[in-house]
Amino acid sequence: MFNEKLTESLGKSSMIRAMFEEGARLKKIYGEENVYDYSLGNPEVEPPAGVIESLKKYVNSDEPGLHKYMNNAGYPDVRRKVAAYLQKKSGVALDENNIIMVCGAAAGLNVALRAVLNPGEEVMVLAPFFVEYGTYIEQSGGKPVIVNTVKDSFQIDIEAVERAITKKTKALIINSPNNPTGVIYSRESLERLKNVLEMKEKELGINIFVISDEPYVSLVYDGAEVPNLLSIFDKCISVNSFSKSLALPGERIGYIALSSRIPGAETLFSIMVTLNRTLGFVNAPSLFQKVIADNLETAVDVESYKKKRDLLYNHLTRIGFRCVKPQGAFYLFVKAPIEDDVAFCAAAAKYNLLIVPGTGFYGPGYVRIAYCVDMGMIERSLHAFTKLAKEYGLC
Amino acid sequence: MFNEKLTESLGKSSMIRAMFEEGARLKKIYGEENVYDYSLGNPEVEPPAGVIESLKKYVNSDEPGLHKYMNNAGYPDVRRKVAAYLQKKSGVALDENNIIMVCGAAAGLNVALRAVLNPGEEVMVLAPFFVEYGTYIEQSGGKPVIVNTVKDSFQIDIEAVERAITKKTKALIINSPNNPTGVIYSRESLERLKNVLEMKEKELGINIFVISDEPYVSLVYDGAEVPNLLSIFDKCISVNSFSKSLALPGERIGYIALSSRIPGAETLFSIMVTLNRTLGFVNAPSLFQKVIADNLETAVDVESYKKKRDLLYNHLTRIGFRCVKPQGAFYLFVKAPIEDDVAFCAAAAKYNLLIVPGTGFYGPGYVRIAYCVDMGMIERSLHAFTKLAKEYGLC
Repeated sequence: MFNEKLTESLGKSSMIRAMFEEGARLKKIYGEENVYDYSLGNPEVEPPAGVIESLKKYVNSDEPGLHKYMNNAGYPDVRRKVAAYLQKKSGVALDENNIIMVCGAAAGLNVALRAVLNPGEEVMVLAPFFVEYGTYIEQSGGKPVIVNTVKDSFQIDIEAVERAITKKTKALIINSPNNPTGVIYSRESLERLKNVLEMKEKELGINIFVISDEPYVSLVYDGAEVPNLLSIFDKCISVNSFSKSLALPGERIGYIALSSRIPGAETLFSIMVTLNRTLGFVNAPSLFQKVIADNLETAVDVESYKKKRDLLYNHLTRIGFRCVKPQGAFYLFVKAPIEDDVAFCAAAAKYNLLIVPGTGFYGPGYVRIAYCVDMGMIERSLHAFTKLAKEYGLC
Repeated sequence: MFNEKLTESLGKSSMIRAMFEEGARLKKIYGEENVYDYSLGNPEVEPPAGVIESLKKYVNSDEPGLHKYMNNAGYPDVRRKVAAYLQKKSGVALDENNIIMVCGAAAGLNVALRAVLNPGEEVMVLAPFFVEYGTYIEQSGGKPVIVNTVKDSFQIDIEAVERAITKKTKALIINSPNNPTGVIYSRESLERLKNVLEMKEKELGINIFVISDEPYVSLVYDGAEVPNLLSIFDKCISVNSFSKSLALPGERIGYIALSSRIPGAETLFSIMVTLNRTLGFVNAPSLFQKVIADNLETAVDVESYKKKRDLLYNHLTRIGFRCVKPQGAFYLFVKAPIEDDVAFCAAAAKYNLLIVPGTGFYGPGYVRIAYCVDMGMIERSLHAFTKLAKEYGLC
């Protein structure tokens, strides 16, 4: 009666959602305070003061025309500001015709993939990865090709990427800092990747776009460097959102930046602007376009995330868990002490710990802990992690 | 290098856009004041006072959590308010699980079409129509089937609909009050349509959804009745936006209402919520969900639109043009005095009148005049219409 494929797949609802429902059940029984919900990447922090100030400024200004249609690419002045900001960061020449304001990164990725893919073309994704990349690619007529990263370090396995490239390869999605691992791909690995991509492009007579999904680019710890992908890859399409950096996930605001080094970038821009309209986004929400344009240099309090990371990382490694120390984002990707990560998450739920199986991110044998939560909850949860570790003889 | 189909179709850019560019050219030469731009449905009015008050209330409240993720279907309390409002209007039982908040009607239509269509299934559209319906249907894997309305009255041609139904028919899009004609489909014709659809469903063993695109439902003149489609059609999916009724087109806020009479409505709801996420919308913008929930009974000043309609309609018919008197929306669909509506629009541009060929809406031989513009512009433009009428010997 409805779309058959979607009706069938409803049964296999996502693991994150399953955890979410289990959480609701547990909270009813034990009370909100006594359930430790690490399942969702929904930032607990409020937007920075500068964002709230800008929002109040516009809303209280009674300026006419704040809520009207504009060009489907977004307000030209907002796009110019984003272009100038990114040009400074990347060293790549950018102007308003390289920027499309979009309804968040999910929208941006859908627009970008549709714009470049012909039916059956392949898009490489580096596992573990945010699982909806696969859906976005399939919806856009493409085929996801999963390439594993290096065991335990989760850095890019350049040889594996090289082996995965075929005549049908059209793009590679890079997400650094990474969800779910918190890893930042090193400059050295990205430079090697660039060489491999360029070599294979020549060898096979193909074009490979690097689609960079960058929502965590401002959430970085210990002064770590996030190499700018626009500066490294000529055929780079950078997609960003302010969901995490400005804690505005509900407002759906982000942008696509097309490198001016892409041959035919003007054509690609026109295709994307048309797609932004026809896919149903039409334009990024107008009021928040203005708000973010005032706050491009702003970010949420990274120190507070760092404290959470340190508390949890130090505790977990002390009690015997193994985990790469995340340099960015707000996730810990912890090795499960047994092979079956789904069973391990079920065991954790006995201690009211809600964590998500790595299998849901094509990272089996691991679990994701989203620490974008209240510090008090982390503190209260530590004894539960200790009990869990004891159950598995880790301490 | 990019998607080939989209690259090719860039050449044939939309007629509305062509007019928009011609407008920019003319405004440079003759000055903003002396160009009469009737090409876009971008409401000139500001949102009602109640909307601005609500917006200020939330933004100035410093209430935490205003900009966070919520359920992909939208805030439950907002959905309950929308459900209660629509239940009162339609008499159909509705609750929060019948409502999905979406990023405007274009988003809602894309979600709705994807949810019901299997590859190759057909969707009937009543010409003339908003031309992007065709793109939405094709993107969703379906095939648009164009059914003409009755000549000159633009009411539904029931027999033509009956003839167009095949075993592959899955849906019919209805847009009343209509863009581009301003016509409201009569209750009598909708009741006859209901009978025909039910008869053909039984005869062919199919399900036909009525997808109602309702952005103009609050913009109605002379006390005309807009029959509520949820109350008439059991398999009704109502899609609405606040772009026109609350003059918020830039903010991308609307909803889908699924009739509880649809067999398996819970399954359809789950499919749509998933699609809202995976198609990249994720959720409707959070702040404006709250704002519209306070303003469901509010609408922009319809009297000001009525004055514009009357001034322009009376003038155009007095100087010899023929046009159905629109009962809703903010468009006049005027018969061109020559067969070639594109040539007629080019002739109008000589008098700095920017109007859009009906061919762009599958309504050849007509032109669309969007009168959601400044009253002063309408007044200044009247002499230009008179000159145009004289050129064609109408007066």
